Amino acid sequence: MTTTLITGGTVVSATGRSEADVLVDDERIVAVLEPGSQLLGSDLKSSVDTVIDATGKFVIPGGIDAHTHMEMPFGGTEASDTFETGTRAAAWGGTTSIIDFVVQRQGERVQDSLAEWHERAGGNCAVDYGFHQIIGGVDDDSLAAMRGLLDEGVSSFKLFMAYPGVFYSDDAQVLRAMQVSADTGLMTMMHAENGPAIDVLAEQLVAQGKTDPYYHGIARAWQMEEEATHRAIMLADVAGAPLYVVHVSAKQAVAQIATARDGGKNVFGETCPQYLYLSLEDQLGARSDEWGTFEGAKWVCSTPLRSHAEGHQDHMWQALRTNDLQMVSTDHCPFCMKDQKELGRGDFRAIPNGMGSIEHRMNLMYQGVVAGHLTLERWVELTSTTPARMFGLYGRKGVIQPGADADIVVYDPNGHTSIGIDATHHMNMDYSAWEGFEVDGHVDTVISRGRVIVDGGEYRGRPGDGRFVKRGLSQYLV
Amino acid sequence: MTTTLITGGTVVSATGRSEADVLVDDERIVAVLEPGSQLLGSDLKSSVDTVIDATGKFVIPGGIDAHTHMEMPFGGTEASDTFETGTRAAAWGGTTSIIDFVVQRQGERVQDSLAEWHERAGGNCAVDYGFHQIIGGVDDDSLAAMRGLLDEGVSSFKLFMAYPGVFYSDDAQVLRAMQVSADTGLMTMMHAENGPAIDVLAEQLVAQGKTDPYYHGIARAWQMEEEATHRAIMLADVAGAPLYVVHVSAKQAVAQIATARDGGKNVFGETCPQYLYLSLEDQLGARSDEWGTFEGAKWVCSTPLRSHAEGHQDHMWQALRTNDLQMVSTDHCPFCMKDQKELGRGDFRAIPNGMGSIEHRMNLMYQGVVAGHLTLERWVELTSTTPARMFGLYGRKGVIQPGADADIVVYDPNGHTSIGIDATHHMNMDYSAWEGFEVDGHVDTVISRGRVIVDGGEYRGRPGDGRFVKRGLSQYLV
Amino acid sequence: MTTTLITGGTVVSATGRSEADVLVDDERIVAVLEPGSQLLGSDLKSSVDTVIDATGKFVIPGGIDAHTHMEMPFGGTEASDTFETGTRAAAWGGTTSIIDFVVQRQGERVQDSLAEWHERAGGNCAVDYGFHQIIGGVDDDSLAAMRGLLDEGVSSFKLFMAYPGVFYSDDAQVLRAMQVSADTGLMTMMHAENGPAIDVLAEQLVAQGKTDPYYHGIARAWQMEEEATHRAIMLADVAGAPLYVVHVSAKQAVAQIATARDGGKNVFGETCPQYLYLSLEDQLGARSDEWGTFEGAKWVCSTPLRSHAEGHQDHMWQALRTNDLQMVSTDHCPFCMKDQKELGRGDFRAIPNGMGSIEHRMNLMYQGVVAGHLTLERWVELTSTTPARMFGLYGRKGVIQPGADADIVVYDPNGHTSIGIDATHHMNMDYSAWEGFEVDGHVDTVISRGRVIVDGGEYRGRPGDGRFVKRGLSQYLV
Amino acid sequence: MTTTLITGGTVVSATGRSEADVLVDDERIVAVLEPGSQLLGSDLKSSVDTVIDATGKFVIPGGIDAHTHMEMPFGGTEASDTFETGTRAAAWGGTTSIIDFVVQRQGERVQDSLAEWHERAGGNCAVDYGFHQIIGGVDDDSLAAMRGLLDEGVSSFKLFMAYPGVFYSDDAQVLRAMQVSADTGLMTMMHAENGPAIDVLAEQLVAQGKTDPYYHGIARAWQMEEEATHRAIMLADVAGAPLYVVHVSAKQAVAQIATARDGGKNVFGETCPQYLYLSLEDQLGARSDEWGTFEGAKWVCSTPLRSHAEGHQDHMWQALRTNDLQMVSTDHCPFCMKDQKELGRGDFRAIPNGMGSIEHRMNLMYQGVVAGHLTLERWVELTSTTPARMFGLYGRKGVIQPGADADIVVYDPNGHTSIGIDATHHMNMDYSAWEGFEVDGHVDTVISRGRVIVDGGEYRGRPGDGRFVKRGLSQYLV
Repeated sequence: MTTTLITGGTVVSATGRSEADVLVDDERIVAVLEPGSQLLGSDLKSSVDTVIDATGKFVIPGGIDAHTHMEMPFGGTEASDTFETGTRAAAWGGTTSIIDFVVQRQGERVQDSLAEWHERAGGNCAVDYGFHQIIGGVDDDSLAAMRGLLDEGVSSFKLFMAYPGVFYSDDAQVLRAMQVSADTGLMTMMHAENGPAIDVLAEQLVAQGKTDPYYHGIARAWQMEEEATHRAIMLADVAGAPLYVVHVSAKQAVAQIATARDGGKNVFGETCPQYLYLSLEDQLGARSDEWGTFEGAKWVCSTPLRSHAEGHQDHMWQALRTNDLQMVSTDHCPFCMKDQKELGRGDFRAIPNGMGSIEHRMNLMYQGVVAGHLTLERWVELTSTTPARMFGLYGRKGVIQPGADADIVVYDPNGHTSIGIDATHHMNMDYSAWEGFEVDGHVDTVISRGRVIVDGGEYRGRPGDGRFVKRGLSQYLV
Repeated sequence: MTTTLITGGTVVSATGRSEADVLVDDERIVAVLEPGSQLLGSDLKSSVDTVIDATGKFVIPGGIDAHTHMEMPFGGTEASDTFETGTRAAAWGGTTSIIDFVVQRQGERVQDSLAEWHERAGGNCAVDYGFHQIIGGVDDDSLAAMRGLLDEGVSSFKLFMAYPGVFYSDDAQVLRAMQVSADTGLMTMMHAENGPAIDVLAEQLVAQGKTDPYYHGIARAWQMEEEATHRAIMLADVAGAPLYVVHVSAKQAVAQIATARDGGKNVFGETCPQYLYLSLEDQLGARSDEWGTFEGAKWVCSTPLRSHAEGHQDHMWQALRTNDLQMVSTDHCPFCMKDQKELGRGDFRAIPNGMGSIEHRMNLMYQGVVAGHLTLERWVELTSTTPARMFGLYGRKGVIQPGADADIVVYDPNGHTSIGIDATHHMNMDYSAWEGFEVDGHVDTVISRGRVIVDGGEYRGRPGDGRFVKRGLSQYLV
Repeated sequence: MTTTLITGGTVVSATGRSEADVLVDDERIVAVLEPGSQLLGSDLKSSVDTVIDATGKFVIPGGIDAHTHMEMPFGGTEASDTFETGTRAAAWGGTTSIIDFVVQRQGERVQDSLAEWHERAGGNCAVDYGFHQIIGGVDDDSLAAMRGLLDEGVSSFKLFMAYPGVFYSDDAQVLRAMQVSADTGLMTMMHAENGPAIDVLAEQLVAQGKTDPYYHGIARAWQMEEEATHRAIMLADVAGAPLYVVHVSAKQAVAQIATARDGGKNVFGETCPQYLYLSLEDQLGARSDEWGTFEGAKWVCSTPLRSHAEGHQDHMWQALRTNDLQMVSTDHCPFCMKDQKELGRGDFRAIPNGMGSIEHRMNLMYQGVVAGHLTLERWVELTSTTPARMFGLYGRKGVIQPGADADIVVYDPNGHTSIGIDATHHMNMDYSAWEGFEVDGHVDTVISRGRVIVDGGEYRGRPGDGRFVKRGLSQYLV
Repeated sequence: MTTTLITGGTVVSATGRSEADVLVDDERIVAVLEPGSQLLGSDLKSSVDTVIDATGKFVIPGGIDAHTHMEMPFGGTEASDTFETGTRAAAWGGTTSIIDFVVQRQGERVQDSLAEWHERAGGNCAVDYGFHQIIGGVDDDSLAAMRGLLDEGVSSFKLFMAYPGVFYSDDAQVLRAMQVSADTGLMTMMHAENGPAIDVLAEQLVAQGKTDPYYHGIARAWQMEEEATHRAIMLADVAGAPLYVVHVSAKQAVAQIATARDGGKNVFGETCPQYLYLSLEDQLGARSDEWGTFEGAKWVCSTPLRSHAEGHQDHMWQALRTNDLQMVSTDHCPFCMKDQKELGRGDFRAIPNGMGSIEHRMNLMYQGVVAGHLTLERWVELTSTTPARMFGLYGRKGVIQPGADADIVVYDPNGHTSIGIDATHHMNMDYSAWEGFEVDGHVDTVISRGRVIVDGGEYRGRPGDGRFVKRGLSQYLV
């Protein structure tokens, strides 16, 4: 049993900040105290095992990345980060919990897939982890199995309106699964893009010789995201299910979500750092000696990067501010250029979809505070508190309060972070999607369930530090 | 110096709850602790002066009522609650801070009005109080004076688009005042009703012999609120000012606010318990032996009660849930039937506008939790945390954390409260607008800056307990 | 060569009315003249073969019903009106042109289907007819064949987002077909209901024993129409195609169309008399000695009748008035109760979908004029002029002007029409969906290409009077 | 009694076109005929007094400009076109009717103002004219007088939400006048800009030394038009009055009108050629040797020219196409630069507001047909048929049909018109707001009540040809 006192810092919550010390006993927070309070008797600093001086720094609940895909099988390959490498990178970046996706596909048993993912993650993770369940094959068996998920601590499942033949559910399947959501309280997460229509457009582009990575974004037009978002909302409305739309990138999709919420529906949305900072124009302009115009493959993800000229990025920042979007996750799904992304040379459809950002989310979002897009409180809310509330982790995670797991980050607003493969990058990727980004802040110390796992520029943890966390229902279901 | 430990309760914040003890030293909270933590050394219970057992109860930040009118001069009379009686009633109801309105009118100096209100409130209040400044006469002098308000701890001012000849500002005046808001960060609060048009309708109704209190609501049609709300939003947009719309009662006005927020504007709205529970139809149906159909005067307020058939009440609950409205205040402005409301017998225009609710807000909103309209967290957020954040009190008020004022309510979800003049009513009114309402909860103990002022069904405070609180700028201005 | 003078009436167009005589020479209108003009020399009345006295009556362009299904194969049976019986009923009701649907299904050649329908209609029709092409099986062959349709005088095709396994197109198919629409100018007509989701709901209702006709409308919830309407609009937007949504019945679907048009899109919508006058509540209440609660089968059609409590009917009238909907067709697709509708006893899914209204459309819409919903001009516009402009018939049809086909109706606003199987009904049905409706007007005389085919309560035409009319592109494509 | 046959042309109506001859007897159209019809006996060509060969040309109803201000008193001067010069210019441009505005101001009698305007116009006009009534001083007297307007053939009145101290009505006045509109059917026309707020902005700009004409448009921000448009809509809704918004220039104002119409309200809007073709950026860039940056004064009008970068112009074209706006008028109110516009040198507020376009409207709108913005039919509808229907002239004006006044224009689509002060300009102005515009069409022949007043590049009419036309109620009031 180790005790730690984090002292002198500014504790930041989703609603405000206070000058307070945080006392940790073993794995949990046991008190938040006025600095130097006499009332609590003896000198706490001298009675604890460890004192962490957070003077001039922010003390925040550890980041929760609710959308990651470690070792994700996709397009004939697998995401390049294992649970070990990916969660270690998360730790480096101030993220102390992830919720990763178990993959069930047509013909597979949900239970088997969950067991397999426990196998993959167990003993390998640097930080705590939970699971969402992908239902890639909605049928009577999988629908029945879904009803057992909550007992397993899996309180959410994801459907795809894209990727026909892979993860795709048609509207009948979506509706059936949403009905289970309505019955059980499991959150329906939706990849909202009209896959069948996109595949038509993509095929036609390739047939016209438009095979560069850029055309990935042309095929996945914003209309296809807006449409699917609206459709998911209406199907959820009929089913009576809550809905969480993942990786929203089109401003028109945000408008659909906002309209649904203004209409009283339990509809939520996340966006990702790439949709805030990067654009289709960036991708169009990308070229390198090594890869030529195929350089753009580095940013092939779905939903795709959107046009800056159309103003999507500014609108995403705005929506985060006004709560039309509620969370920021990464959709971390990295692939190396070598052997992976390059599968799609000559045909963008074969490029594995995904980017790696898990290490940079907290920093990139903090830069939004520096730039005046968000308040400091909103930063904590978007990256930690709401993810915990949304996905049934709150109380243990997402907040600094007695009884909570001691997942704490000491963040230095006077520090600096340079991002790139030769800089802070610890993800298992041969490139960085964020090469050259500079952040006016720094993750100094990362504590996971009471243990310091990153400090002083060193990683002090080891595989298996992180444990599976059973999640309850979303706090937002009233 | 008194020390208090509130132990065994569930501390509820705007984002969640935890089983925790709260330690108070003199006027402030010094720690939030895990119950029975050994680490903090000696037995806290025995070392503090007072132990409050909150087992099975909620421990919440004291309510903040950001919209009250004690002793308000209106219609040739004054609101019947003085600062003394009104704030005592507030305390009884679990509200430990109010923000009242200083009244400046055409030809009066802002500085003088503020001084007068300090005179009125000073030494008389049961709980802490702040001031908003009503600017009833926008001119060069008052505009200049507004720039000094923040130094006085007054970070918001209110304009009226209604009441021509009394508090009314025309659009030129509104715009000029909003430009000061944009420059200084003072929050513009708006009574959004089209007064000149309403007065035409009211005059015509009276000319037709439609003089009953019910016609007050007919004259003040929802279109007049929706219109003024939209106008205020557009004027604020041109000025670059933040806007807070008071006492929103029409669902169409909510829609205007929601659209503005979805468009990225700093526009906020409050509603009041009367718009959630009471309706124009109630008012139409009201009659008594004593007052006949003039009974309806009890619920004459502006904005007026709205038609239940049109669904406004349900929409207000929904808007509170989805954050299209951000706060619940009372617009507490009580008048007795005798000698006051009865001024308007035979002409509803002469009925003093206002209702008394300050004592019941926390209970009535808790009943919304019982009914499933809101979560427990949202209750705290709407009644305490957001008011503090919105009006520059956060940190001292609105949250249970070290360093905050020890304004704390122990609320018993297993208690019960019957509302009415013969029941719990301590407001200086000869009737209750809430006669017969039953609430499945009870305000057990109220602590104001560390002192227990209500407990065991007794009021233990005295006039002057409450002090003026200087407020800073709104936390929502990014 | 026969000449006719229609004299003394009020000629009504889509924009206004005038006191004028209409001179017909053989099949065409050759002049519209001031009554009794001396300038035109000799006494026209005595020089023409026939004089029709229209004094006190309206002289209007013959109705155009742009949505009929004669002999339609559906649900294992065929619509009960043949081209002969159906077009004769049309004539009785003042409709002098229909546009019927050729049916192509998966695996069938478009050319063959068109030839078959020419075979069915040729020589049998009482009035002129054109064809829309149903594409029930979008594939490379049918897409190629669509490009030849305009040469055949078929300038529009219809897709179904409903009826999986029958006429259904998935989104990939819809998009491909719309791309042909964009290239060729062919109008895309859409049955906009989410069939796959509806089938889930219908199956579940039946499994719960909810098999009555009423549940047909429950399964086909408005959300399913609104959703599909929005989806069709977005797919058309991506394709660059014009879109015409058939049989709109949900007010929320109207809103989608209105939004699309306000956004500058070439999106149009029709409704039908049943969605103006009849309701889901009517269907729920329907029962008879003969059929019990299965009586409701008489009004089983898709889209279904909508709830009156939700206000759809009033909204349809409003949308017709404000041009948010542009046309009124019947979707005439009659089935007898005996042997046809009764196939669905015990399972509403087996009830053939459709109602018969072709004979009553002009009268029912005129009643909308009487009731103050529409102007007289709008009546003509909705039932004749816009259908002609929308579907490439204008100039020949839809207007009274020199050069146009002499398709003319003399309508008596002082006449009266009682509707019902024992009254004016000439459709081949064993019931009337409109039993007991009374109309304050009467179709007195019907002239088709110069020939009087209905007059004095007698039908004077014969099969084969009507000819196939080649249609050009829509006038609304700019 | 003169007879005329217009032969060989294409008669264009609001709904379509036909190859037809038009026979005129004295002042009226007596027949529209198939060319060369034998049935009508003798050779018409030889029996009429005049034959006009319109081969290859369009024969359209004469233009109706429903918004002109001849001799308008404004800003201490008067609009430079008299009824004589202005209506002659109208004739040159194919406009055969105007509706001009009678001006009543505070303290003046409505009857006197109408008499004065009859005096001004009588005997001076080249084409027919009607009057709208400006009510610049709403009070009991003027409200009473409004009830007599319809008997005088004046079926519409105009209010101003702008110009405090001149024509301005406050909301109480607006509401009272609209109530008369609701009672009588008189159309309320509204200048929708928030004058009081604009005056604040304008004063501040001038105080900052921003005195150039360009700042006129900055002061009159789109928010001020959008706001007033919405306010007018809501006041009309409360009053139950129809509303016609004049000179709409902001796309956001269009959206308000569209929303109102989608909600079933009788709300209409016009725009003007300047808002389709010219922009604020044009005005900013304008400078000349003669006037320097004051050159921009040529385009000072209210509402002002809008920013092209914001897309208002494209949106106006779109709104005309989709019928979100219903008409195009000119708001013809010319002032010379010399002695008039130059009053505002050094202070844009003193520049008389207005532009001259009456001569060019038909041509400029035809260019919209050439450019593909509008159909030929829509051109006729926007410039003639709808103005007639909207303002109670239909039947006599706005249509080519028997019984109508023979106000006819022969328009040559193969002709060409160069616009400018040295080109076709006949307005009494010392500059042209349209200098250098080229139009691919030409007004060849203009017939007013049967008389050719423009032909072969010559003006053949004389003052007094035009008569006052009494107007009835709008056709759109159902």
